[in-house]
Amino acid sequence: CVILTILALLSMVIALIAVSPACQKFFQTSPIYQIYPKSFADSNNDGMGDINGIRSKLAYLGDDLNIETVWLNPVYDSPQIDNGYDVSDYRSIWPLFGTMADMEELITDLHDRGMKLIMDFVPNHTSDQHKWFNASSHPNHTDHEQYKDYYIWVDSTNGTSTGLPNNWQSVFPGNANSPAWEWNENREQFYYHAFYKEQPDLNLRNDQVLQELEDIMAYWMDMGVDGFRCDALAFMLESKSLRDNPLKDDTQPPSYENMYPDYTENQNGVHEIVASWRNLLKKYSSEPGVYRFMETEVYNEDIDIIMRYYGTEWQEEADFPMNFLLIDIGNDPSSWSGKNIEATVLKWMQNMPQSKWPNWVVGNHDNSRLVTRLGEKRARCTSFLTLTLSGTPGIYYGEEIGMTDYSMSDQTDFRDPERTPMQWDDTATAGFCYNCTPWLAVNPNNNDINVEAAKTEPTSMLSMYQDLLQLRSEVTFLRGWLCVVNSTQRSIVFVREMTGTQSYLVAINFDDGSSDTVDLTAFDTILPESGEIVAASDMTTSGNRQLRNLQIEAETGLVISFKRGGYFNQEASMSGRCFNPRKVCVNVIGLLEVC
Amino acid sequence: CVILTILALLSMVIALIAVSPACQKFFQTSPIYQIYPKSFADSNNDGMGDINGIRSKLAYLGDDLNIETVWLNPVYDSPQIDNGYDVSDYRSIWPLFGTMADMEELITDLHDRGMKLIMDFVPNHTSDQHKWFNASSHPNHTDHEQYKDYYIWVDSTNGTSTGLPNNWQSVFPGNANSPAWEWNENREQFYYHAFYKEQPDLNLRNDQVLQELEDIMAYWMDMGVDGFRCDALAFMLESKSLRDNPLKDDTQPPSYENMYPDYTENQNGVHEIVASWRNLLKKYSSEPGVYRFMETEVYNEDIDIIMRYYGTEWQEEADFPMNFLLIDIGNDPSSWSGKNIEATVLKWMQNMPQSKWPNWVVGNHDNSRLVTRLGEKRARCTSFLTLTLSGTPGIYYGEEIGMTDYSMSDQTDFRDPERTPMQWDDTATAGFCYNCTPWLAVNPNNNDINVEAAKTEPTSMLSMYQDLLQLRSEVTFLRGWLCVVNSTQRSIVFVREMTGTQSYLVAINFDDGSSDTVDLTAFDTILPESGEIVAASDMTTSGNRQLRNLQIEAETGLVISFKRGGYFNQEASMSGRCFNPRKVCVNVIGLLEVC
Ligand SMILES: [Ca+2]
Ligand SMILES: [Ca+2]
Repeated sequence: CVILTILALLSMVIALIAVSPACQKFFQTSPIYQIYPKSFADSNNDGMGDINGIRSKLAYLGDDLNIETVWLNPVYDSPQIDNGYDVSDYRSIWPLFGTMADMEELITDLHDRGMKLIMDFVPNHTSDQHKWFNASSHPNHTDHEQYKDYYIWVDSTNGTSTGLPNNWQSVFPGNANSPAWEWNENREQFYYHAFYKEQPDLNLRNDQVLQELEDIMAYWMDMGVDGFRCDALAFMLESKSLRDNPLKDDTQPPSYENMYPDYTENQNGVHEIVASWRNLLKKYSSEPGVYRFMETEVYNEDIDIIMRYYGTEWQEEADFPMNFLLIDIGNDPSSWSGKNIEATVLKWMQNMPQSKWPNWVVGNHDNSRLVTRLGEKRARCTSFLTLTLSGTPGIYYGEEIGMTDYSMSDQTDFRDPERTPMQWDDTATAGFCYNCTPWLAVNPNNNDINVEAAKTEPTSMLSMYQDLLQLRSEVTFLRGWLCVVNSTQRSIVFVREMTGTQSYLVAINFDDGSSDTVDLTAFDTILPESGEIVAASDMTTSGNRQLRNLQIEAETGLVISFKRGGYFNQEASMSGRCFNPRKVCVNVIGLLEVC
Repeated sequence: CVILTILALLSMVIALIAVSPACQKFFQTSPIYQIYPKSFADSNNDGMGDINGIRSKLAYLGDDLNIETVWLNPVYDSPQIDNGYDVSDYRSIWPLFGTMADMEELITDLHDRGMKLIMDFVPNHTSDQHKWFNASSHPNHTDHEQYKDYYIWVDSTNGTSTGLPNNWQSVFPGNANSPAWEWNENREQFYYHAFYKEQPDLNLRNDQVLQELEDIMAYWMDMGVDGFRCDALAFMLESKSLRDNPLKDDTQPPSYENMYPDYTENQNGVHEIVASWRNLLKKYSSEPGVYRFMETEVYNEDIDIIMRYYGTEWQEEADFPMNFLLIDIGNDPSSWSGKNIEATVLKWMQNMPQSKWPNWVVGNHDNSRLVTRLGEKRARCTSFLTLTLSGTPGIYYGEEIGMTDYSMSDQTDFRDPERTPMQWDDTATAGFCYNCTPWLAVNPNNNDINVEAAKTEPTSMLSMYQDLLQLRSEVTFLRGWLCVVNSTQRSIVFVREMTGTQSYLVAINFDDGSSDTVDLTAFDTILPESGEIVAASDMTTSGNRQLRNLQIEAETGLVISFKRGGYFNQEASMSGRCFNPRKVCVNVIGLLEVC
């Protein structure tokens, strides 16, 4: 009888746990909000965004948007040849962004609010102004011996600066005949740079360099940083053979675009490095409530190469590789068909290893802004998609208010248009700074598009984000099944469902022409006659909606709650179209839990 | 006081454990004796060696040689185009070798003697007579749908048998223009074969194929097999890009030897497969006293590629990749200098990951026999080396009696000379069979070179093996330090030592000219004036030997025990030259143990 009582109590505890999101990590419960630090907020009115500027906006992120996780593009000391991705000191802050003390305050402020900080981590290369490169490139430097093999130095084939080791090309500037090799007069050798010549590649076959990188990660985790977005990982190793990359078109000159990077990207050994970082992160995740996150930036046409960064069944690597599939759909609105989006979603979900966690990115600092590419209503549809799918959505600063590209006449980087200052209000400098000249011109459409206006306008894009982020905090959206139910040329329809909670149907019509009708009669045992619209991308549509032949207005997304007659994930016809990333973890009271 | 008593008892237990070899695995305590089944012993006098023949010789292996671990080249059903490496059924025995019942008896007999069986495992390809290939290559086969992607099928570039997909070449037969693609009339497609065209490569990117291979391993482990020697692992995957391998010499036609196998060997993903096998082996190693072993066959000039098969700090793969560095020294006796051997030993030991276990192979079924290559006395020196170094020596059947190559006029395979029947006695068919015609001619030198004669001759090579195998069972040789002390043009000198046990100095002069003197005066605090010869390769030399200026007779190996004044492994000058593969394991009474 005592045993039965204990068992009964245990069952209650287990039942309680079953609906508790306790074992989801912060990167699962919150979207990741990407801040481009130069452009977010300028606290001292020198025209350059800074860390104290970010600190001043945490109420917006934490309270207005309910964002928990923030990722900063690089804030390390840097000559800023590549917007901070050319780091000259991994352990100090670029003076225009502030000081290390500011950084510590930012971390404290974030943690006080229950928020988390993801830092950019740049392991492939340093700035040519880094002290390692100085010592490495000068044979007479007192520390030369220690640093000489920190970079990839190769002899000339003819003893002079014309004897390039091979045909390898730089990603930047990227035009034809941009060799990835730069001649160094001091060493009378070439060094390799996958990107700008001011970004020499580190020699990651040197154990000392690997140790330096781990020390840097440990330094920032000791400071309290909650994780890393790891930059350009595919480039970490190059073939020791130094053989030419094959050209795509032999009749054209070598260029990054005209070669297959068979000897310069995703070489054997990259995953061993990523795995070693995960093990370091694990060491730093042993305190209760502390978890160190890793996401990876890798572009590749082969989905298997991307997915491999999740790790294997036996060795975890990234929590997720960043998912750029939705960005890859491109800028042509006609590509954003229901069929194409369905195929894109299924491509990630069907290739993702079991028990892993998806993520969705539609914009970042390297791509034209969503509204510019697709128009305002279709941009809403796209965010509607990422915020209601299973997994972690990314939000590029300003995306939530519908900011657009701004092409300047004095543009220095082709990506400047999508990096203009955050539009906080309708004043001349958009509340980014006051009585100042922003480092990049403010988009003059800040008259209409700005946070202040958006907050008070119930149908604004920002209001839509707030609605959807609220909805996303429900357990069905956080960790329920995703079933991709159907698609048409115009629309995609999917369901979020979970035992014991409300089922939701999400329907998005990306077409700007007319409304669409999706036939769902095949599921009439699960779907009732109608359901209730609980969210709409236009922030206007509401009421009940017939479900069997579901009508969706042009360029509109709908979330419809319904009283289910069963589960999509149990239908034979949905095989291969339903996904539930489950993970077993030990919860706070020490019990195994599936979530 | 009770606590002190417990502590005292604990210390005693720990002290006992410290000198116990309990946590060494069978592959560490015994050499691996390689049996080429066709040539070892023929039980039914049909001229072909067989499993019952092997069973009849276990007393020789177990009692005379004190061998614990036996590796069989493939015994699976096969058309024998590549001596059994073309498997037509992984779950049955080639009829000329016997039956599955014979195999079960062999396993039982071995285990009854405390011996272990390693099977060859061929995952890269099957025979074209395998039922999978039959179903895969015939579109009308009833099981075609299930097996169609079991092999690597590629369309012709021009729709006919002349449109080779690319320039990839076969290892066999290996002459110029031996495309690795074979046209199949039924599918009107090419299939890929890294080796003979009768050995189609399996498609290891197909999860079903990977599952088949694991099922085969599980089948044999259920039968009691103790481990696998995994064949040709570098070839397991090919680049999906199908791009041409670069030629070494553009002016010469493509051939296996004239290309860099950049798209056909050691591709990304190979180690994930090997890791999955290790995890399967681990599942089969959970019973007390049971351990499932894996060694890998990979040839590469880049030592890092070989070493990677040990696994990483976080994911074990092979117990060891087979070490062919000593074979790579080649057939020219002048290459077998003391300096070169020292460099070869150091190359393995210095590149091996920490806590891993070395191994040494000097002969196998793909290489000319040691005595033929180097002469009898130098062959003794070579075995003297592998049997006294740290790690597992391999012994190719007959090596222990000094068998030599025999070139026949009717040779069908260029490797036949090193695969002639084992010479058991001086009768016409050498005791391999009786009143029979062996499948390969017996080397007529069996008059002099045979087991029976060797057993009674106290200075025979076999007697030397027996002496050294006895010595090797001492804990100092099993798991003590290896310190590579010095070398000259002619000789190598190393030390085996361990806290609390006898220290030994091993000195081998490979030169056939004259004796050598090695200056060891730098170690006069450790080395006494002289030591006692406890083993000599000529089985004659004995007595005391001066150590400070150590004299070693031409083509002679010596093991000298000495009363040490200290440890080589604690000398600063020996940094990077001393090795002690330590592993922490849980022993039978549940305590952590370093061994
Ligand atoms: Ca690199
Ligand atoms: Ca293969």
